[in-house]
Amino acid sequence: MRKPQFNSNDRVSTESTLIQTLFAPLALGNASSYGLRDDVAYMAPSPEGLVVTQDHVIEGTHFLASDPVGMVARRLVRRNLSDLIAKGVEPSAAFLSLAWPKSRDHGEMAQFATGLGEDMAQLCGNCPLLGGDTSTIDGPLVASLTMMGRAATQNGQPILRSGAQTGDIIATTGTIGDAWLGLQVRLGLLGGEGLAQCVETAMAPKPPPLALAPVIAKFANASLDVSDGLIADAGHMADCSQLRLSLDLAAVPLSSEACNWLAQASNPLEVMIRLATGGDDYQCLVAISPDQFTNYVVAAKAIGVTITKIGTCEVGAGVRLNYKGQEIPLPEKLGWSI
Amino acid sequence: MRKPQFNSNDRVSTESTLIQTLFAPLALGNASSYGLRDDVAYMAPSPEGLVVTQDHVIEGTHFLASDPVGMVARRLVRRNLSDLIAKGVEPSAAFLSLAWPKSRDHGEMAQFATGLGEDMAQLCGNCPLLGGDTSTIDGPLVASLTMMGRAATQNGQPILRSGAQTGDIIATTGTIGDAWLGLQVRLGLLGGEGLAQCVETAMAPKPPPLALAPVIAKFANASLDVSDGLIADAGHMADCSQLRLSLDLAAVPLSSEACNWLAQASNPLEVMIRLATGGDDYQCLVAISPDQFTNYVVAAKAIGVTITKIGTCEVGAGVRLNYKGQEIPLPEKLGWSI
Repeated sequence: MRKPQFNSNDRVSTESTLIQTLFAPLALGNASSYGLRDDVAYMAPSPEGLVVTQDHVIEGTHFLASDPVGMVARRLVRRNLSDLIAKGVEPSAAFLSLAWPKSRDHGEMAQFATGLGEDMAQLCGNCPLLGGDTSTIDGPLVASLTMMGRAATQNGQPILRSGAQTGDIIATTGTIGDAWLGLQVRLGLLGGEGLAQCVETAMAPKPPPLALAPVIAKFANASLDVSDGLIADAGHMADCSQLRLSLDLAAVPLSSEACNWLAQASNPLEVMIRLATGGDDYQCLVAISPDQFTNYVVAAKAIGVTITKIGTCEVGAGVRLNYKGQEIPLPEKLGWSI
Repeated sequence: MRKPQFNSNDRVSTESTLIQTLFAPLALGNASSYGLRDDVAYMAPSPEGLVVTQDHVIEGTHFLASDPVGMVARRLVRRNLSDLIAKGVEPSAAFLSLAWPKSRDHGEMAQFATGLGEDMAQLCGNCPLLGGDTSTIDGPLVASLTMMGRAATQNGQPILRSGAQTGDIIATTGTIGDAWLGLQVRLGLLGGEGLAQCVETAMAPKPPPLALAPVIAKFANASLDVSDGLIADAGHMADCSQLRLSLDLAAVPLSSEACNWLAQASNPLEVMIRLATGGDDYQCLVAISPDQFTNYVVAAKAIGVTITKIGTCEVGAGVRLNYKGQEIPLPEKLGWSI
């Protein structure tokens, strides 16, 4: 938000007026934002340090041009939030870089700001928007969010991809594959019958609640959010932790809609692989010591989060897939890629 | 940099390979970056707090499609750096959000990374790139940088737009209008004779050296970088400080190229107004107590920065323009706007 509201001399106040009208309220009165009227924001000293993530959404790459922009804003918030929750981090500040298409009017920008503000308030524990930059683009909508906060770990460091130990249990929150299923419906590749919730999820998948962050911070050895696809992200953890993740595809938790769809499939294994490589799940994939696993499940359950064991960490490298007791070859495509 | 280099299972490693090849070296071995292989970066506790800025560059809005992408990257770094220097801040970390056009090849991306890395090293005091996000876009190049660092002020707070006092001297670093002049040549609106340096400046205007940040932190009451245009930015300071900035247009410092061009103009006042509203100067506009002004000039001179007094702060609101002893009306357009 480089350009603040201008004085009575101003005859070119469009951007600054929009910022003051639509985005300054999202600073929630936080003094560090200087009301989005200065060039910078100030983050007070934090004894734990700060954990920073940055993710963007691009029209045509991460969302469809026909998506309601309020949902696009929610997707942007949730992409970043799921990264932080998976790392045991509670957000405390966000910065928005917005390239706004000339073809979209200010009413749509208001919808974008509303979606952003509601998610920052409801899902991110009233995380304030402290600054950013807004310009027009002769092309697709591009929005990038930088989100930062404090890890609930004892040393203030985030839970990394690299901390998994041989023998650890691999578990995921929630269900996998809904966003991918919903996207197939939205693209017209699947009929939508019985997949209404997946279609909704596809636009802006919801991460676990913020209250999971301190639970992961307390119990996990390694963690990341499932965004590229379950198998690809398991591969990231395996690679960074220098071991092998052995996953049981039949154990991967599915929503009732996905279960019903799977039940109709002529080749259930092929379907399971699609669900496990589709991506955009925004769930947390965690490696956890066997002696902490029950504590983790109980603590997560207390805040309404279901944990499912789907694998283990072994000596080796990469990902090994099992399905109903048989090892199966890795698919050609492990996940979503640019 | 959401997706790290992948293991031997990987068949979709394009993004991660590019990140590891082109951008991971820009982390300069900083442990907080986790080698750009995790979803987050960690900023260690800083007793002064952190000052954060975020600015983007958009093809067609902030630069021409024909600009060499290495220069585009430099422009991006300098846009952010000039914000921090003006606030008395030395950068310590940066995060890059990159929407890369499908039509531009990886050779161009390498040029982008080279320009980025060289400026981060040479102009930003070896500021490391700690993370970000890279995706393709079916449209123009969009790059956003989030840059943060520590203010060299006693309390760790940045120098704001809002601190100017009645009676303060208004001064700028360097020269004004070169980027605008160079852009006119690049757009074919002006002949380029005698404006070679301006044409170079227009692609990636250079802010004052980093060593100016502690000087501004020590002496300035208010400060911002000249990016919208001198008159518009003076208006921002006036508005935030709730006083009036009275500027002497004839005192605005010009490069020798701009001086020569001005000397040929039939209406020099009109030309001065264009130079003072063109923007992208990346110089520091500072309000400073009269009893500190000489100290400021001397300290700046010691690091090779020329300071020019161009106005004063008065009771009132907005900007008042004077030219050779006469008050003149404000132009219709005070600066660049989206």
